[in-house]
Amino acid sequence: MIKYTKEEFSQFGKILKLNLINSCTGYKSANLIATKSSDGLTNVAVFSSVTHLGSEPALLGFILRPNTVPRNTYTNIKARGLFTVNAISESLIADAHQSSAAYDPSVSEFEVTNLEQEYLDNSEIPYVKGSPVRLLCRYVNEYPILENNTIHIIASIEAIYYDEVLESPDNYLQLDKANIVAINGLDGYTLPKLVSRFEYARVNVELREKG
Amino acid sequence: MIKYTKEEFSQFGKILKLNLINSCTGYKSANLIATKSSDGLTNVAVFSSVTHLGSEPALLGFILRPNTVPRNTYTNIKARGLFTVNAISESLIADAHQSSAAYDPSVSEFEVTNLEQEYLDNSEIPYVKGSPVRLLCRYVNEYPILENNTIHIIASIEAIYYDEVLESPDNYLQLDKANIVAINGLDGYTLPKLVSRFEYARVNVELREKG
Repeated sequence: MIKYTKEEFSQFGKILKLNLINSCTGYKSANLIATKSSDGLTNVAVFSSVTHLGSEPALLGFILRPNTVPRNTYTNIKARGLFTVNAISESLIADAHQSSAAYDPSVSEFEVTNLEQEYLDNSEIPYVKGSPVRLLCRYVNEYPILENNTIHIIASIEAIYYDEVLESPDNYLQLDKANIVAINGLDGYTLPKLVSRFEYARVNVELREKG
Repeated sequence: MIKYTKEEFSQFGKILKLNLINSCTGYKSANLIATKSSDGLTNVAVFSSVTHLGSEPALLGFILRPNTVPRNTYTNIKARGLFTVNAISESLIADAHQSSAAYDPSVSEFEVTNLEQEYLDNSEIPYVKGSPVRLLCRYVNEYPILENNTIHIIASIEAIYYDEVLESPDNYLQLDKANIVAINGLDGYTLPKLVSRFEYARVNVELREKG
């Protein structure tokens, strides 16, 4: 195997270090977080850190990087308390990635990319049209991560919308049926395919795949 | 689209709720965390919450659920300060999943599954043999998430080992070259394939895919 110690990779150039450290922890979720300012200006941006935190209550978390990302998302979430999380499917990749450019805070990414906003059930905050899984979320708390000046945002899931193609008897959203992508590193978009689902693992019971 | 409000999905049965809430936030990383107790007993378990936190310094985070998971991993990490994170590739799926069974704390999952431990460079903590990306990590801090009694563990990356098949000029680990999997929901293992990598997104510059 190839090996790098912290002393070695700390000396890498910026891009080489970003590529290695961003890709070594595995695949990441691919979502667009949409918000609206108190003035009514919308904002949408790619996040690869949205993570399931628990089901009872239904909570998710994600990481904000105030040092490198314009703070619209954070400011808007704090202003309104609500935001939406929209899964990125294959057809949304290019526009989703473009939304990560450093547009002026006065510009809505919905205006300068082909991403379109959609208001479901007269929601206050827009969803991303065409996204196959869309969550309405409410800000619950934040934990500053002192080690690198990021913020861990905790939010509750208030409503879930999903494409009919994902409907299943056990409520499992098999994400590949809607061509939802996963992120590899800083800039790689991947398309996963389900290999197998397993029964709940038990001691001394032979492992079975689900039918 | 199909819609469920929080009031509705809160009333679902346990499995239906777990399936929906665990799958709606997108794909998750698939890693085996290996630890060793102060007595020398090894432990290995699947974690789907390992997330990149930052590259300078190189940090990752993951979520521990003290209410539902035996606390070996946490106790061992606190006892020794070091642990390993090992990417799950397709050939490791079945044994990785089996390691999540509720074995007695006195049993090492390395003994009762086909997962094999491997000590690289005389490391104190074992790695998982056959895993194509392996990280040596050091506990840095923890943030209790009060909303659901989980713990967000913050760790530094001390060393990175990866399979030669992943070597690339820009240090990008293209995870599909080593058949590394992503997790969908509670029990689904998926195999992603790279669709495209993009240049850093810029304002007013046409988006290009990397060569």
